[in-house]
Amino acid sequence: MIRLVKQVNIWTKHLDLLKNDRIRLLFPRIICSIMPMIELYSDEYFMKKAFEQAQIAADAGEVPVGAIMVCNKQIIAKSHNQTELLNDVTAHAEMLAVTSAANYLGTKYLQQCELFVTLEPCPMCAGALKWAQLGRLVYGAEDNKQGFMQYGKELLHPQTKMAYGLLHDDCSLIIKEFFQKKRTLSR
Amino acid sequence: MIRLVKQVNIWTKHLDLLKNDRIRLLFPRIICSIMPMIELYSDEYFMKKAFEQAQIAADAGEVPVGAIMVCNKQIIAKSHNQTELLNDVTAHAEMLAVTSAANYLGTKYLQQCELFVTLEPCPMCAGALKWAQLGRLVYGAEDNKQGFMQYGKELLHPQTKMAYGLLHDDCSLIIKEFFQKKRTLSR
Repeated sequence: MIRLVKQVNIWTKHLDLLKNDRIRLLFPRIICSIMPMIELYSDEYFMKKAFEQAQIAADAGEVPVGAIMVCNKQIIAKSHNQTELLNDVTAHAEMLAVTSAANYLGTKYLQQCELFVTLEPCPMCAGALKWAQLGRLVYGAEDNKQGFMQYGKELLHPQTKMAYGLLHDDCSLIIKEFFQKKRTLSR
Repeated sequence: MIRLVKQVNIWTKHLDLLKNDRIRLLFPRIICSIMPMIELYSDEYFMKKAFEQAQIAADAGEVPVGAIMVCNKQIIAKSHNQTELLNDVTAHAEMLAVTSAANYLGTKYLQQCELFVTLEPCPMCAGALKWAQLGRLVYGAEDNKQGFMQYGKELLHPQTKMAYGLLHDDCSLIIKEFFQKKRTLSR
């Protein structure tokens, strides 16, 4: 049994493996006991996933903002800023996540969902989250210039819970580096 | 000549006829002298077109809001609210008009454009208009509950000019009647 647990520990070195249905079916009890320990579905885990999306945006020359929509601790939408690619100012990561999640769930209301986004949403995105009646918003870095908080939390739905500052330094740095690089190139 | 002018006046009873290229080619001078008089491309003309879009939305069971994007006095996008059809809270008339106009012009910035919309935009739509750096916004009826003006004109781009109150009563009535009918049906 101990050997088996060790084996499972190796297999589950990468957390994503725990989401594999075959492993869940083979070792349900072990997985159940491991899961709370390693906090597979923590806020930090989801924010890291959002940050991966921001990195994809950066690599594509887009303003690096990434978002993950989560429903019952399951990721139902991943997105990153695509305003350049789609030539569309409305193609922010949050907007794409809202549309994608609504499409997946078959309802445009997202009261059961949590949105993890690397940067504080702008008023446009906060407005979309209000219409969607989002359950919970978690963002990484603040955006003092374009963020919605300068107009107050009232831009969100009154039932939307909120947290911020998760992976703050990484989420902030990727934006700063992007614009620094852009300024250097445009000189 | 007088008879010809009379004839043209009959033909141009419906303003849309003046946009017909064949008529323009046949009677360029007459058309040129008539056009300023009847104000073919007035704000009211475009707001009527936006109102037609709102009526299409009402007929489709959508919240009746319509929008027209105009560039150099030419309509480049028509849209109406499609949140029910597309099952997407972001599918407001203004958002669809912004995306559509950007697609038509090949640029996501709309400094040369005017948006005519029947209802005061919400913060989501105002935010989109800010990102697009819209040249001018004209809206019909105010929206005291969901409109962006409760947060101030700062939600728009500082260069965006603004006017409101055009076809106010029609634009307001179509919304009131829609929700009245909805409440009656849900009883």
